[in-house]
Amino acid sequence: MPDPKLLDAFATPTDAPLVIEHVAEEFTSVCPVTGHPDFGEVTVRFQPRAARDSGVCVELKSLKLYLHSFRNEGIFYEAVTDRIRDDLNTLMKPVWMQVVTSWRGRGGIRSVIRAGVGVIPVNTHF
Amino acid sequence: MPDPKLLDAFATPTDAPLVIEHVAEEFTSVCPVTGHPDFGEVTVRFQPRAARDSGVCVELKSLKLYLHSFRNEGIFYEAVTDRIRDDLNTLMKPVWMQVVTSWRGRGGIRSVIRAGVGVIPVNTHF
Amino acid sequence: MPDPKLLDAFATPTDAPLVIEHVAEEFTSVCPVTGHPDFGEVTVRFQPRAARDSGVCVELKSLKLYLHSFRNEGIFYEAVTDRIRDDLNTLMKPVWMQVVTSWRGRGGIRSVIRAGVGVIPVNTHF
Amino acid sequence: MPDPKLLDAFATPTDAPLVIEHVAEEFTSVCPVTGHPDFGEVTVRFQPRAARDSGVCVELKSLKLYLHSFRNEGIFYEAVTDRIRDDLNTLMKPVWMQVVTSWRGRGGIRSVIRAGVGVIPVNTHF
Amino acid sequence: MPDPKLLDAFATPTDAPLVIEHVAEEFTSVCPVTGHPDFGEVTVRFQPRAARDSGVCVELKSLKLYLHSFRNEGIFYEAVTDRIRDDLNTLMKPVWMQVVTSWRGRGGIRSVIRAGVGVIPVNTHF
Amino acid sequence: MPDPKLLDAFATPTDAPLVIEHVAEEFTSVCPVTGHPDFGEVTVRFQPRAARDSGVCVELKSLKLYLHSFRNEGIFYEAVTDRIRDDLNTLMKPVWMQVVTSWRGRGGIRSVIRAGVGVIPVNTHF
Amino acid sequence: MPDPKLLDAFATPTDAPLVIEHVAEEFTSVCPVTGHPDFGEVTVRFQPRAARDSGVCVELKSLKLYLHSFRNEGIFYEAVTDRIRDDLNTLMKPVWMQVVTSWRGRGGIRSVIRAGVGVIPVNTHF
Amino acid sequence: MPDPKLLDAFATPTDAPLVIEHVAEEFTSVCPVTGHPDFGEVTVRFQPRAARDSGVCVELKSLKLYLHSFRNEGIFYEAVTDRIRDDLNTLMKPVWMQVVTSWRGRGGIRSVIRAGVGVIPVNTHF
Amino acid sequence: MPDPKLLDAFATPTDAPLVIEHVAEEFTSVCPVTGHPDFGEVTVRFQPRAARDSGVCVELKSLKLYLHSFRNEGIFYEAVTDRIRDDLNTLMKPVWMQVVTSWRGRGGIRSVIRAGVGVIPVNTHF
Amino acid sequence: MPDPKLLDAFATPTDAPLVIEHVAEEFTSVCPVTGHPDFGEVTVRFQPRAARDSGVCVELKSLKLYLHSFRNEGIFYEAVTDRIRDDLNTLMKPVWMQVVTSWRGRGGIRSVIRAGVGVIPVNTHF
Repeated sequence: MPDPKLLDAFATPTDAPLVIEHVAEEFTSVCPVTGHPDFGEVTVRFQPRAARDSGVCVELKSLKLYLHSFRNEGIFYEAVTDRIRDDLNTLMKPVWMQVVTSWRGRGGIRSVIRAGVGVIPVNTHF
Repeated sequence: MPDPKLLDAFATPTDAPLVIEHVAEEFTSVCPVTGHPDFGEVTVRFQPRAARDSGVCVELKSLKLYLHSFRNEGIFYEAVTDRIRDDLNTLMKPVWMQVVTSWRGRGGIRSVIRAGVGVIPVNTHF
Repeated sequence: MPDPKLLDAFATPTDAPLVIEHVAEEFTSVCPVTGHPDFGEVTVRFQPRAARDSGVCVELKSLKLYLHSFRNEGIFYEAVTDRIRDDLNTLMKPVWMQVVTSWRGRGGIRSVIRAGVGVIPVNTHF
Repeated sequence: MPDPKLLDAFATPTDAPLVIEHVAEEFTSVCPVTGHPDFGEVTVRFQPRAARDSGVCVELKSLKLYLHSFRNEGIFYEAVTDRIRDDLNTLMKPVWMQVVTSWRGRGGIRSVIRAGVGVIPVNTHF
Repeated sequence: MPDPKLLDAFATPTDAPLVIEHVAEEFTSVCPVTGHPDFGEVTVRFQPRAARDSGVCVELKSLKLYLHSFRNEGIFYEAVTDRIRDDLNTLMKPVWMQVVTSWRGRGGIRSVIRAGVGVIPVNTHF
Repeated sequence: MPDPKLLDAFATPTDAPLVIEHVAEEFTSVCPVTGHPDFGEVTVRFQPRAARDSGVCVELKSLKLYLHSFRNEGIFYEAVTDRIRDDLNTLMKPVWMQVVTSWRGRGGIRSVIRAGVGVIPVNTHF
Repeated sequence: MPDPKLLDAFATPTDAPLVIEHVAEEFTSVCPVTGHPDFGEVTVRFQPRAARDSGVCVELKSLKLYLHSFRNEGIFYEAVTDRIRDDLNTLMKPVWMQVVTSWRGRGGIRSVIRAGVGVIPVNTHF
Repeated sequence: MPDPKLLDAFATPTDAPLVIEHVAEEFTSVCPVTGHPDFGEVTVRFQPRAARDSGVCVELKSLKLYLHSFRNEGIFYEAVTDRIRDDLNTLMKPVWMQVVTSWRGRGGIRSVIRAGVGVIPVNTHF
Repeated sequence: MPDPKLLDAFATPTDAPLVIEHVAEEFTSVCPVTGHPDFGEVTVRFQPRAARDSGVCVELKSLKLYLHSFRNEGIFYEAVTDRIRDDLNTLMKPVWMQVVTSWRGRGGIRSVIRAGVGVIPVNTHF
Repeated sequence: MPDPKLLDAFATPTDAPLVIEHVAEEFTSVCPVTGHPDFGEVTVRFQPRAARDSGVCVELKSLKLYLHSFRNEGIFYEAVTDRIRDDLNTLMKPVWMQVVTSWRGRGGIRSVIRAGVGVIPVNTHF
């Protein structure tokens, strides 16, 4: 079961702005309708709050274990995307964040779901 | 026969905005003039209404079965595109939606048809 | 001889806007100066008038036969492009239309000719 | 009508072996069943007889005009390939020759036809 | 239902050897287990018997219509491949023939099936 | 738990030789040392025994479900490969078979494991 | 010697706007310093004046012969570019025109020269 | 231990503006959580202060040795990025600077971290 | 210091032949002449002895830790390659084994070193 | 030693604007710190002053010899870039000019240096 308690954070190391992007290429969960496995890629991109605002960044190994916890969960693509956004938002309260899930085809259909938090800059590359 | 009753929806899981894209790479229908099969790709991209507005999202397996129901239908490219837009719009009343059909060549001519609902943002990637 | 009477149309199936693109990859006509064959690709992109405005769309097989009718015509690239624009404009009176012909090299020179009708949007992809 | 009298030759300039390859990328003929145009590419690869054996090579402009003479001929792919082989064989009596025609798709099927004369070396690139 | 009576042939135009390859990129049939559509590509490669042996070649439009006749047939990949080999072998009795079907993924698995007739040369390109 | 009882077969449809290849691009199991998920691709390539020898072919949907049954199994790469070979060999007793598993990197190391049954032809493409 | 008298024109076939692009991929002239041959590509892109303004378009075969006339001319890259612009401008007085010459490397240096006439639109593709 | 004293600088050679970019493709440090090595690429892009402002530029060999000094340091991706920015900023006080670190996957997750100093122009290419 | 005691093995799971290949893409050691870090890729490919011969296979995580133990070792490319071969040979006594190290350029030169054990088959792909 | 006296110019052939770009792909100089050779690519892009303003353009062979004169010079990347800009600026006083040097990796670090003169247009392609 997706478990946000697996998520850990560390203090943002600076007051100067950072943009952080993690791409998990090996995500899997289970289709709640058919019970068959789903495979996809999860991208998380965000600007953490600054050190002076007690900002935190998600720790990478904990993010990996958290994403693993969806492995046997029956859950729609849209709910996966929304859930990751909410759990990471609760953890970090970032200045802004994007979550994009991209799913390999099933039944000849492939899908991409996007969710956001805050004002995402046009050029997220800084 | 294209059958919108095959379409199912589930409640949008959140009030926060989502952008959803489904690409069906193996679509086929029949040319109403020659009776020969047509082959193409169908892309559906939309922002569902929020949970607080009783928004719904099309369920993926039902979308697959709905698209299969065009298999033996004699229908023009333009009408396929318009029909999918109308049936999905009736189902979901999304904030905005794009439907694009891209057809493999026939008689040495390949075609792309685009249809929309609502104000489609310039950058549909959020 | 290029014969616009070969062109057929069907009623636009909807009042909602459509953008339609046909790419004929195997066009041939004859050079009026040398008598040698020319080979090229013809792209037609347009927004038909709506159903409520008695709009029509060119039928694909008739477009193919119409383009075939240039096969033994001695005609300049520029006149081919202009002729297709005029004949399709007469048939459909579209909201806007682009016609682009792209010619394989002859004498080591390859050419592209563009012609338009109406106000072509910057982003013709809708 | 395909006209071998259009073909011209010139004397092989040497006794040393030559391998010659001509690729005509813009070939067109007509389907004898449907009357629709066919488009393809014709490759001719051969070793001419030597000068001391009164060998000859096909002249390039005459080959172009000869291939143009198929333009309005209703003829199967296989017969096109065989005809070119026979006409060039009659003209040149080469040591060996390959004729390959590669056709753009029609009705969703693309085709390649190969025909030969003499003992074609495993490595035709010499 | 796959219907070999749709297949037509014409007399091999020559006694000289030909190698013929047809690639149908838009094949579809139905899975006999799930009832869902399958999509694939069918390649047929063969050397017809010579004219002096009353050899024949499959006619292209008839091959297209024959392949279309699998459209609503519930049939395994292996049986599709075997059936095409048998029906074309009955029609043509070629010197040798290869039939290869390559299927788009379903349930995350894509498949390729190969079947042959006669002694297929190591270098099937002649 | 990997369950060979999930595997189903159907009778080889012919006495003529077939070569069959299935590629499962979305395989996952669990590392027995770390408990972390492994992701890879499984290729199965074989020649079934002929119909007259009571030959059988693995059924595709059953193969998918069988491969899914490794999902939560703690098992080494080598044992996965060996297990699939043994279970399919028990089911089909093919003339020959290759099983190749290719694993995405973990700890910066990616791996490929190959196992075989019978005399695998040099050119497995027939 | 570059000879503008080789250039021919024909009347613009229409009052509607056209954009014309010719790319000569096989241009050669001679370096005035070293006497060695230079090889390059010449692109000419323009909007001719309309038919009602007695507009004309350069005829393709005459353009080819004109470009051939630079073959033995000792002339700098910059002067080639300027000369073509001036000669075509004198011939056609187009609404706008771009001339770009792109030269293969010599002495390890490759060069591109651009020259223009009139107000060149940002998007020269119409 | 990352050692900024390894960094050397030389006087900016001019008052005219320069934009300098160094890409170190072989960076390695150690994960502070697992003790395993991390591998990545570090890009530093900046405009040094002018000669008249006593501007300096980081010397390339000293930059290499400085980056080597992270080799056995247990440090998060974000802190690596921030540290390099701070140390180079202290050394050079550039008009503006970007530091981007791009990390090879670990546990199936790859990451990119971006940090900046001053007003980074939209087009950093000058 | 490279430490073979870090290497672990598990029993070969079968008597049937296996070919195993591990590619470590992130190897680093230190140049014994300059003290600068070297970066490369290590490939290990082998056939383990069979289960009935008490064969063993190297365990993947232990291989990773063993390769990490070269991190601060001053050692030539050739000695790295030889050392890995010897340590793995001592551990497994495989039927045959190849070790290939491929090094990123230094001073503009990149290198590949190969070492083997036993009779390596021409086609190591089985 | 870099020798600006090697540079020659010729009179701009026209008053109409030209944009000229030279790319020298084979530049080499010497690192002033290590004495090792550096290899890179030099791009010079400029608009010369018009003929009526006594404008001149750098002559290509002289540019080649000038760039060769850096071959045995110990000089930093930044100084190379600045020097070329200054010497060409002294020679031509162009309307604007860009000089970009791009260096192959040394010690695992590759670099790009940019310098400019005058107001460089956003779209330097005219």
